[in-house]
Order: sequence, then structure tokens, then C-alpha cells
Amino acid sequence: MIPEDHPRYKSLVMREHLAECARKGIVSLEGLTAHGRGEAFDYLLGEKTTDPALKAARTAAAFLITAKKPVFSVNGNTAALAASLIADLQCVSGIDVEVNLFHRTEERMDKITRFLESAGVRVLKGTAERLVPLTHDRALCLRNGIFSADVVFVPLEDGDRCEALVKMGKRVITVDLNPLSRTSRTASLTIVDEVTRAIPHISHFFEHMTLMDAEELISCHENRTYLKAALDEIAGRLKYALD
Amino acid sequence: MIPEDHPRYKSLVMREHLAECARKGIVSLEGLTAHGRGEAFDYLLGEKTTDPALKAARTAAAFLITAKKPVFSVNGNTAALAASLIADLQCVSGIDVEVNLFHRTEERMDKITRFLESAGVRVLKGTAERLVPLTHDRALCLRNGIFSADVVFVPLEDGDRCEALVKMGKRVITVDLNPLSRTSRTASLTIVDEVTRAIPHISHFFEHMTLMDAEELISCHENRTYLKAALDEIAGRLKYALD
Repeated sequence: MIPEDHPRYKSLVMREHLAECARKGIVSLEGLTAHGRGEAFDYLLGEKTTDPALKAARTAAAFLITAKKPVFSVNGNTAALAASLIADLQCVSGIDVEVNLFHRTEERMDKITRFLESAGVRVLKGTAERLVPLTHDRALCLRNGIFSADVVFVPLEDGDRCEALVKMGKRVITVDLNPLSRTSRTASLTIVDEVTRAIPHISHFFEHMTLMDAEELISCHENRTYLKAALDEIAGRLKYALD
Repeated sequence: MIPEDHPRYKSLVMREHLAECARKGIVSLEGLTAHGRGEAFDYLLGEKTTDPALKAARTAAAFLITAKKPVFSVNGNTAALAASLIADLQCVSGIDVEVNLFHRTEERMDKITRFLESAGVRVLKGTAERLVPLTHDRALCLRNGIFSADVVFVPLEDGDRCEALVKMGKRVITVDLNPLSRTSRTASLTIVDEVTRAIPHISHFFEHMTLMDAEELISCHENRTYLKAALDEIAGRLKYALD
């Protein structure tokens, strides 16, 4: 049992929850390692949403509001960490949700779909086709989902696939705690924040944004500034970390 | 298959190997997440041994040479990553090796012991007793192993246990990629490096060090300088990381 007054309580509970989800076959073993990488960067960022990350979340809401067909691509870690938050975002925005996995098996697809549905998420169904310019099963997605989306919201994404989606002409919004990852650098918009903090911010901004605000935010947006701000935050914190 | 010319080939192979060891029950699910945290810090350190980390490895060899009874405490991750390197260090230094796990089950103890033995490591046997001032099974160690050691070499250690060993009056040497972790700050000596790079350095220095060199190294050693140097290295690299 983790004591509730532990300074890093939330992070430790999340870690145990993910291990439990790995035992159930929702999270892959590779997903646990990826979560650890995220934990380290979150630790360096102070385990809180920075001002630039909040602005990025606001810009993400703007992208979603102005999109013709936004799709939320959910993997095992995102489902395990944020199922009810995904349901909330879908409720306010109507966004389509597609389960799309890097370590894809039919069993995991089913488990994650049922896990999301039990949290109130409406999940796109259909037969996946090889429509993303990648080799093997990583090319699979739904024709009426990611393939026809103009904006794809895909937290915790792999660099290769992020790049492939951008090449397909899509606007890709990601959530990634590593400001230096290929995903962070390649995405149209990167929210450098922990996924369970970022999604509720997007839902909130979506509810309170006009179309005019959204268009202005998008017009002056530059992804590199969010990444640079996150690096500056980390470097600034390291400077006095041992004092 | 990870292509051999991938710039992060070694790191990716290691990640897959650990996932495989988790499937076999040698590495715990929590160990996979911990490995991810290490990966992130190693990435920030440039995935190479820095000069201060090399000096720390040299000092570790000095501690081992001058020890009356040094013991190497091995957990699942260390065994999975470095079994043959542990055998090499034992060969040059004669150090006793005790398997000591945070997520302890008899099954994992047996599996890890057999894994190490198959790599040529001589593993201490006996009945573990509650001799470390911690609650539950985390107190367990061997009376003729860690309990009677004056120097404990314990890479990838938990903060609580590191602190408890120091309180028992032992000199604790650790390997930890996070220069800010409680383990790093609490240990007598922290090598901020990846464990498969650090152990061969210690073996090499052990073979080529006189007792006089060792005593001089120990006399002028201050752990904080290694941690500060690692933070400076990370901060320096972040500064130009996006350029």
C-alpha cells in the first residue's frame, strides 16, 4: 500500500495501476517501459502542468474545434490511464475514438475496446486495412477512422507512426513528456504533459472556446516553442535540484 | 527486428531483452517501468559514460579493493542486464554475490539464482533472515552475506533499502542513472551510468589499482560531486538539444 501522504502518491498509484493492466493484457510489457520513460521526464518537469503545456492544450482544443473529422487514436497505455477522461472529451467534443496499437493482437484490441466501453467511450468498429505508409501491422487503421481524419489526436505515440500520419497530410496532436522524442518533434502540436492532466484541460478549453478564438490560436501556433519551453523548464529545475 | 544501424540499437535491444526476461519471470513488471526511467536519464546523458562517472567507477573499485567483506547485491534487472559482467567482476575481485529482491518470491529467487549461475556467477546460499531495518520481506538478507558486509555494491537499488543499509553502517555503492533519486543521494558512492557500462569499468580498474591508489581515491571522494556533474551534463546537453 502506498501511503496517501507520499509526495509522489499519484505517480506511484498510476505505476501500480499500469502493472495491474499489464497483468490483464491491456498494457504491453513495452508499454510499461515507455511509461517509466515518461515518469522520468514528468519528475524533471515537477509533475505539474507548466504554463506552455496549458497553452498547448488550449491550442489542441482549437485544432479539434476547427477540424472537419477529428479522430482520437487510443493505445493500451492511454486507455489504461485515461479511459474515463477519454469518455469526457468525447462527450463534450463528439470526437471519434479508434483503438490503434503498436503491439497489435486481436486479443488486446478486444480487451482495450471493452475496457474503454465500460468507461463510457463509444469506440469505432470495422475492419482495419493497411492504409498507413508503414510496414506490417503498424500500417493498419480504419478507413472511416484515422484514414479519413484531418486531425488525429494520438497521445503517447511512436515516432515512426507519428511521422507517417503527418506525411499523409494530417494534423497530428500528441501528448508526450519527452520534448526531444521524434514524436514530439514531428507532430503538428505537442503537449508536453502527463496524459491524465492534459486530456481534462483539452475538454475544458473545448467547452469554453469560440471558433474565432480557435482560429487565432492556430494561426500563431509554432510547435517548437512548446518543446523549447519544456527543455528550459527542466534545465531551470536541474540547476537548483541538489541545493 | 531492430536494424543494427539504428542510432539507439543497443538501448532498444536491451529493452526487448528485459521484456523477454519479464515474460520468463526474472524481471518484475515494476522492474520494466524502473528500466524506462533509467532509459530516459541515459538518453539525457547521451548514452555514454561521462568522465565523472568513470571516476566514480574507479572509486568504486577502490572501495572494493580496501573492503574486508564486499558483497554484490543483485536484483532482477541487474541479473537480466549484466549476468556475465557480474561473473567477470567476481572473477577478478572474488566478491560474494547475493540475490536480493524488492518484489521477492521464492520462485523469482530461484529463477534469478539459476540465471546467474548459468552465466558463471557463484551465488551465496542460505536462509534469509529479517536483518535489515525495514518492514516485511524487504528486511530479508543473508547473515553471511549483506548483513556482515562492510561494503555493499547494489546497482539499481530502492531508496528505502539504500538508506537502511547506510544506517547499518555499511558503505553502499550504487549505480543509478537518476542523479536526483533518493538512492543516488543516500549512497556512499553513486555511479551515474548505465549498469552494463559501469560494471566492466569497475572490473578493469580493480585489476589495475594498487592499494595506495585506492586509499588516496577514497580519502578525497565526495559523492555530491558526481551527482552535480551528472546534472550539469544533462543541463548542458538540453541547452542545444533542439538546435
